[in-house]
Amino acid sequence: MAEFKGRVDLLKNRFAGKLYAEVKNLPIIDYHCHLSPKEIYDDRQFTDIGEMWLGGDHYKWRLMRAVGVDEKYITGDASSWEKFYQFAKVVGTAYGNPIRDWCSMELSFFFGIDAPLNESNAKEIWDRANKVILSQKLSPRKLIQMANVEYIATTDDMCDDLSYHDLIANQNKIKAKVVPSFRVDNLILIKDKNYKFYIERLSMASGIKVDGLDSLEEAIVKRLGYFAARGCKFADVGVEGFPKSIADKESADATFKRLLAGESVDDSDCDGFLGYIYAFLAKQYAQKGIVMQLHLAVTRNSNTLMYDKLGRDSGFDCVGDMLEVKYIKNLLDCVNSDGGLPKTIIYTLNPTMYYPLVTMCGAFGDRVVMGISWWFCDHKRGMYESLQTLAELSHITALVGMLTDSRSFLSYTRHDYYRQIVCDFLASCMTDENDVYAIQVAKALCYGNAKKLVEG
Amino acid sequence: MAEFKGRVDLLKNRFAGKLYAEVKNLPIIDYHCHLSPKEIYDDRQFTDIGEMWLGGDHYKWRLMRAVGVDEKYITGDASSWEKFYQFAKVVGTAYGNPIRDWCSMELSFFFGIDAPLNESNAKEIWDRANKVILSQKLSPRKLIQMANVEYIATTDDMCDDLSYHDLIANQNKIKAKVVPSFRVDNLILIKDKNYKFYIERLSMASGIKVDGLDSLEEAIVKRLGYFAARGCKFADVGVEGFPKSIADKESADATFKRLLAGESVDDSDCDGFLGYIYAFLAKQYAQKGIVMQLHLAVTRNSNTLMYDKLGRDSGFDCVGDMLEVKYIKNLLDCVNSDGGLPKTIIYTLNPTMYYPLVTMCGAFGDRVVMGISWWFCDHKRGMYESLQTLAELSHITALVGMLTDSRSFLSYTRHDYYRQIVCDFLASCMTDENDVYAIQVAKALCYGNAKKLVEG
Amino acid sequence: MAEFKGRVDLLKNRFAGKLYAEVKNLPIIDYHCHLSPKEIYDDRQFTDIGEMWLGGDHYKWRLMRAVGVDEKYITGDASSWEKFYQFAKVVGTAYGNPIRDWCSMELSFFFGIDAPLNESNAKEIWDRANKVILSQKLSPRKLIQMANVEYIATTDDMCDDLSYHDLIANQNKIKAKVVPSFRVDNLILIKDKNYKFYIERLSMASGIKVDGLDSLEEAIVKRLGYFAARGCKFADVGVEGFPKSIADKESADATFKRLLAGESVDDSDCDGFLGYIYAFLAKQYAQKGIVMQLHLAVTRNSNTLMYDKLGRDSGFDCVGDMLEVKYIKNLLDCVNSDGGLPKTIIYTLNPTMYYPLVTMCGAFGDRVVMGISWWFCDHKRGMYESLQTLAELSHITALVGMLTDSRSFLSYTRHDYYRQIVCDFLASCMTDENDVYAIQVAKALCYGNAKKLVEG
Repeated sequence: MAEFKGRVDLLKNRFAGKLYAEVKNLPIIDYHCHLSPKEIYDDRQFTDIGEMWLGGDHYKWRLMRAVGVDEKYITGDASSWEKFYQFAKVVGTAYGNPIRDWCSMELSFFFGIDAPLNESNAKEIWDRANKVILSQKLSPRKLIQMANVEYIATTDDMCDDLSYHDLIANQNKIKAKVVPSFRVDNLILIKDKNYKFYIERLSMASGIKVDGLDSLEEAIVKRLGYFAARGCKFADVGVEGFPKSIADKESADATFKRLLAGESVDDSDCDGFLGYIYAFLAKQYAQKGIVMQLHLAVTRNSNTLMYDKLGRDSGFDCVGDMLEVKYIKNLLDCVNSDGGLPKTIIYTLNPTMYYPLVTMCGAFGDRVVMGISWWFCDHKRGMYESLQTLAELSHITALVGMLTDSRSFLSYTRHDYYRQIVCDFLASCMTDENDVYAIQVAKALCYGNAKKLVEG
Repeated sequence: MAEFKGRVDLLKNRFAGKLYAEVKNLPIIDYHCHLSPKEIYDDRQFTDIGEMWLGGDHYKWRLMRAVGVDEKYITGDASSWEKFYQFAKVVGTAYGNPIRDWCSMELSFFFGIDAPLNESNAKEIWDRANKVILSQKLSPRKLIQMANVEYIATTDDMCDDLSYHDLIANQNKIKAKVVPSFRVDNLILIKDKNYKFYIERLSMASGIKVDGLDSLEEAIVKRLGYFAARGCKFADVGVEGFPKSIADKESADATFKRLLAGESVDDSDCDGFLGYIYAFLAKQYAQKGIVMQLHLAVTRNSNTLMYDKLGRDSGFDCVGDMLEVKYIKNLLDCVNSDGGLPKTIIYTLNPTMYYPLVTMCGAFGDRVVMGISWWFCDHKRGMYESLQTLAELSHITALVGMLTDSRSFLSYTRHDYYRQIVCDFLASCMTDENDVYAIQVAKALCYGNAKKLVEG
Repeated sequence: MAEFKGRVDLLKNRFAGKLYAEVKNLPIIDYHCHLSPKEIYDDRQFTDIGEMWLGGDHYKWRLMRAVGVDEKYITGDASSWEKFYQFAKVVGTAYGNPIRDWCSMELSFFFGIDAPLNESNAKEIWDRANKVILSQKLSPRKLIQMANVEYIATTDDMCDDLSYHDLIANQNKIKAKVVPSFRVDNLILIKDKNYKFYIERLSMASGIKVDGLDSLEEAIVKRLGYFAARGCKFADVGVEGFPKSIADKESADATFKRLLAGESVDDSDCDGFLGYIYAFLAKQYAQKGIVMQLHLAVTRNSNTLMYDKLGRDSGFDCVGDMLEVKYIKNLLDCVNSDGGLPKTIIYTLNPTMYYPLVTMCGAFGDRVVMGISWWFCDHKRGMYESLQTLAELSHITALVGMLTDSRSFLSYTRHDYYRQIVCDFLASCMTDENDVYAIQVAKALCYGNAKKLVEG
């Protein structure tokens, strides 16, 4: 029988192992993810690894589509085993793709299976993994506990009801703190055909009749208070584009009213309105000690046919074209001059923006920092790239740390992936095996900086 | 005498040699090149290596110009030996340039000379190589046969007469299949001062009087049929820019008529017309099973003085500025919704487009794929970059494989260069020396995928 | 006591050491820096390392701000020791940042201290370094002499009085030749609120009443002559943006007069005027044998609050967004067609421009070349990146060589950093330990090419 070789080892530099030993068992602060609070509360036991891996993970769906797997085995009506088998075939030859590494790490960490999954061992791994699921009673909370997670910030629409967060808190069955994040995408998507309905939803959620900029601001502030009262520390937005101008309040009010009335609004007015809203939100965040996250340069729903069939978040988003950083700078500079910036973390899907972005962050001291490589950039080389660029152009300890950004409870192994990369990179800069500062930095990047932020 | 050390060895990772042994002798499928069918048919024996290397290779001309070699020794009236000597001086110090590696590989493979060419051995290599040319009777067909080439897709203007392809087929003196590709650049260059004459040429070639969009479409379809009947499997375009909009048929027709009449047409109408044509071509390709190739982000003829002297393809093209990928996505999405996409391969000269492009391809499953690094990107690091990015953001087996894209019959060694890089990269991802899937993937990338495409 | 390990060793490839031995002692040609001619003339002895390192070095200021050091310890009223101590803390954990390497090299080379500075050894190093300053009588000229500098081109506004250059020349106390460079930023910043005053200053400096394009040109020519008479070989500009068009003389004249009159001028007229001026300057440089330097893609003074407090060059500049290279090509092509290009060196802060820029340079032979990685790009990986890209897309010997671009007399160690990288890169391309051409190239890149240029 072939030796199983599934564990991923990224510790190449000679001092890396020593550093890694210092951080590998630190708790996880997951300050940005897409886990479902309802699933955490319900804590339903999983039944098979096909469901766990392929039920909603559009990263894996894309990988299968890239080599022409029939949609039947992706989002169609094939059985869980059939889907798993098709995926095993695809991932077994996905050399260089992070999903291959992640699967190996998840199999190893959660299931004790040290093998790279492929077509020939698919049935064996399916059986073994499913046995583990049953015998270990794997469930959301079990997985969170196994991964030693201390803090989870979910992503919630700013109009969302947060009753599951309340229930989890009252239930007191999970060691990790589970708090909401304030996501404002729908507030920003003013050209969406459902925008008016969203504003109605905001009126309902806030109890404030939103019919102009004043009441909009009031409603936003009220929702932010509702979130903050539940421990919310992070706000977020991740839409296409970024405003190039900031309207004054009067124009913004006029534009907003035209939007509500369904009247046509020209692009520059829309842009100015969005600039106004971004600036308003930033100021609110600064006042309430909320961290502002900007997720930049994404293109959503690129395949209209499939969007019509499957809706959003089904694997048809792409890296967006480079955005001009000067507009982001203008907005931050304006907020900075006008009362001060919130702590801000900027992510981009397009790595060609790293140089202008990282240096722009530097113009605002430690208030504005780059986040770790996001989504399509979140692979071994991508993490090195973002870590190294930050180290070169700013200061490596400006990095807050890793986040999972996942819908899957198995994804916590990504923190281990990150920790190995951090240690390997630091080791490549070390000249002294006993450098205590390198250990200090490794701990800060793997735990301390995020801890400070969520407690700040 | 100094030891000759000319062979290039890119097999750095420990399992690479084993993989390479599995692929190094596979036949070559050259599905995109600029070889002349006339030269293949004529099969005239070469006389000296100066002529073979420097007669038309603008890559080498650029290298010489970059260090200030007098144009006399490049495209001027110096003797073949003088040009070769000047080139030897330049290439001997061109550390890190792929031409240096290619020359070493060509000398080794075709001439049995294992030396990096430089100023001091120029005369010796000149003599030895020329002796080989005579004794081995090196000619186009001889070189093609030595390189074990199975399939050659030349690049032909859509109005070109394909009689040499017919002659080659009837002649039956070459094992490799030689087929045309449908190149539409001149159809797209609507601002060229000779555009009207090109459309007249299209009328002649197709036998259809082109005086509006209907007859234009008819003529295109007829030419595509003429090409397809000769085994054409690939279409191609490689011009500056990419349309940002798609006009409806009526507007496109009006614009085309104004173009034919020599009337002024504003930029947005030109753009919409081009969008219409791109979409029309894509649909035709889809219907006929032709693979659409897009060569993006090139700037042509950047030095007007030299263009006036030497014309095009003489070494003054450059990497173009990044194009916005959203427009390419829009066009493909539109064609996809409107009847389906042809198999599409996208190349770009500007690597900053890789992230948006590769992920956009992923939104169309395996219909749209990235091509291997093109032209200025076709060097060791560039190939790694494109291969690795594809592996990280898509699936490595989505790559069709290597092409030569060359005017020289000696360039087939580039496939060996590529094969070494593929094996080295795969080896860097392997954890098990006996991984059969890695061999499977290596074979697919070096032969199988291209074979499937040309037979598809 | 812990072993000190401060020296930086970048010689990883096996033949690198041998090459490095050939170049490490070559003199330095510093053809672009921001050293003060007054300080060279005055030659005041330094008193402490805090002053030497932190007095005006906004690279170090940024590093401290990136991790939240209070401005008091940066540009505030803290003592020199307090600032040094804060800096030591920050640099001690700045893994991967070039400043950490530079500090180690400066401590080693100028002070004989082989330690990476950090919080725990800050006091010891402070004492040792200050002792060296006193015992060695470290002063600008002393440091220049220690570093074996042969040539220094300072950066001087085109209106600057060059009396200190004259004084240095007459003083005859320094072996290095110290010459001015012709910097035209203020001539180009036509939207600056002080533009009119700058033109008045130009009138004064040139003795020509500037009231239109003719007199402007006359004044420029006169100033250029004044600089050239003092050995000026280099001109330079480093502002935001680049003109997209070139106005004819009549329009440029009209625009200039409106600017002088304080009338509003629309953006396209400004742009055309700037294009005219760039082209005019280029032609003047070509006539006088002056090398034109373009520093592209910078964003200045990004933090308005801090700009109002500290003014410019205080650490709030950023990498600018990518510029479209086609406009740079258009301008150069136009000048090339219209009488010929000056030798031109192009630098960019945004590495995403490398591919289009390097290949564009190639379209103008050896007249237009890329400079070495600039400012934020001037770190180990960044130098490799620019060196390797040049080698791949052009010819490695097209590189002129290293420059210091610094305000600090200690920065000459950066040449050693560069030399190690050059040797390491060349070594990675070598297959023969005794390759004489590699030595030739190393010497050209570390000394010969720059020497030829400054003597040209």
